Amino acid sequence: MKLYDGGRAPNPRRVRIFLTEKGIKIPAEQIDLGALQQRSEAYTAINPMQRVPALVLDDGTVIAESIAICRYFEAIQPDPPLFGVGALQSALVEMWNRRAELHLLFPVASVFQHLHPAMSRMVDPQVPQWGEANKPRVMQFLEFLDRELKDRAHIAGADYTVADITALVAVEFMRVSKMAVPDGLSNLQRWQRCAGPNATGKFAHRAPSDLQSLGTTPAVRLGSTSLLCGAGKMTRRRKHAARAL
Amino acid sequence: MKLYDGGRAPNPRRVRIFLTEKGIKIPAEQIDLGALQQRSEAYTAINPMQRVPALVLDDGTVIAESIAICRYFEAIQPDPPLFGVGALQSALVEMWNRRAELHLLFPVASVFQHLHPAMSRMVDPQVPQWGEANKPRVMQFLEFLDRELKDRAHIAGADYTVADITALVAVEFMRVSKMAVPDGLSNLQRWQRCAGPNATGKFAHRAPSDLQSLGTTPAVRLGSTSLLCGAGKMTRRRKHAARAL
Repeated sequence: MKLYDGGRAPNPRRVRIFLTEKGIKIPAEQIDLGALQQRSEAYTAINPMQRVPALVLDDGTVIAESIAICRYFEAIQPDPPLFGVGALQSALVEMWNRRAELHLLFPVASVFQHLHPAMSRMVDPQVPQWGEANKPRVMQFLEFLDRELKDRAHIAGADYTVADITALVAVEFMRVSKMAVPDGLSNLQRWQRCAGPNATGKFAHRAPSDLQSLGTTPAVRLGSTSLLCGAGKMTRRRKHAARAL
Repeated sequence: MKLYDGGRAPNPRRVRIFLTEKGIKIPAEQIDLGALQQRSEAYTAINPMQRVPALVLDDGTVIAESIAICRYFEAIQPDPPLFGVGALQSALVEMWNRRAELHLLFPVASVFQHLHPAMSRMVDPQVPQWGEANKPRVMQFLEFLDRELKDRAHIAGADYTVADITALVAVEFMRVSKMAVPDGLSNLQRWQRCAGPNATGKFAHRAPSDLQSLGTTPAVRLGSTSLLCGAGKMTRRRKHAARAL
């Protein structure tokens, strides 16, 4: 099994954080997006959509699309569950992951793709007006998310899920898109501290249950009087994650 | 349980076709998108994203996002499976459903949203240049899909899945977006006849296993020498679906 990875681009990051949460390590090859390696004949044969990441299984089967790759690993290693457990929770995780994609990650990416000069070689045509049109969409969703996070620790409910990974990657990609989270969204900022330990996202969040199993203080308890993150010890696993992501 | 539905819009259609495939009937209420009822205070309280469809469970829990609703029903009624069975097939269905969304449904919808005069009240701002930019993306994906469908009956492989529903709804929405499937994409046209019985999509496809259980000729056999659809009898269930969709 081999992962075709793509540096700091948001989708490859989603998969890397997901794998880190699962504690899964697999061989990876970097595709140089800056050099347009994703459009090479060799990579196009792997993923005709010319996008990263892509996972190639030992029999040659290719799984492309970040969330498809994540679902594959969720199925072969269910613990810790990151797509919800049971019909209802799974549906709510799907809902929130899609909301985080459609109203946050994709708009943030569109701002970058259609306004950043470095993307002119990759996005044809760049439509600056479309880039601008996405900025208020991002801000509106962040304000909505801030209100939603008033009473719960994570995007889709009590537990840390793939929806948190999507939202975290999106929020952290705002800097690249030359946007900033507005001041005053205190619930969102609290969530971000829980979902990622710092503004640069150098290591992945551990779900409370994992922190417990790792012998650290649970960062967030649903139903407790406080939703604030605990400091948490820097475990060996988290230190590894810090280097990896 | 109650479904807030939305007429001929693509996402509500996805859920209706999915439910028809599952043979599930639930109470539905139409939200009048033309009258902007999705932005009413009452509906915003149900889905703050102001989009249809939304499913409200008996305890008041709301599941929004078409695919989240579909996944909920897949979990509570797995037969016939429309999201794949097992880790690999499920991942491939996710991959193809997302490809059909990202490279077909969303671009087709963007053409409509940003170029159709009727959408000027709903999409602010309309960016016509973005609408135009999506047209070649649609055509490129259709050509890719035609090549992919050379050797298989359905979008994600041998079986009819939610990826076929997404692609079918997208292809049929092209007419509303004032686009047409180019001549010569014979594999795509063959697939469309299998996935939907006619150009207006008045009733849902039945998977081969279902057709067999309904006593009709299987429409498509993978591994057979022909991928052509059989005519298939118009069963009572299909007649019902014809009225419903």
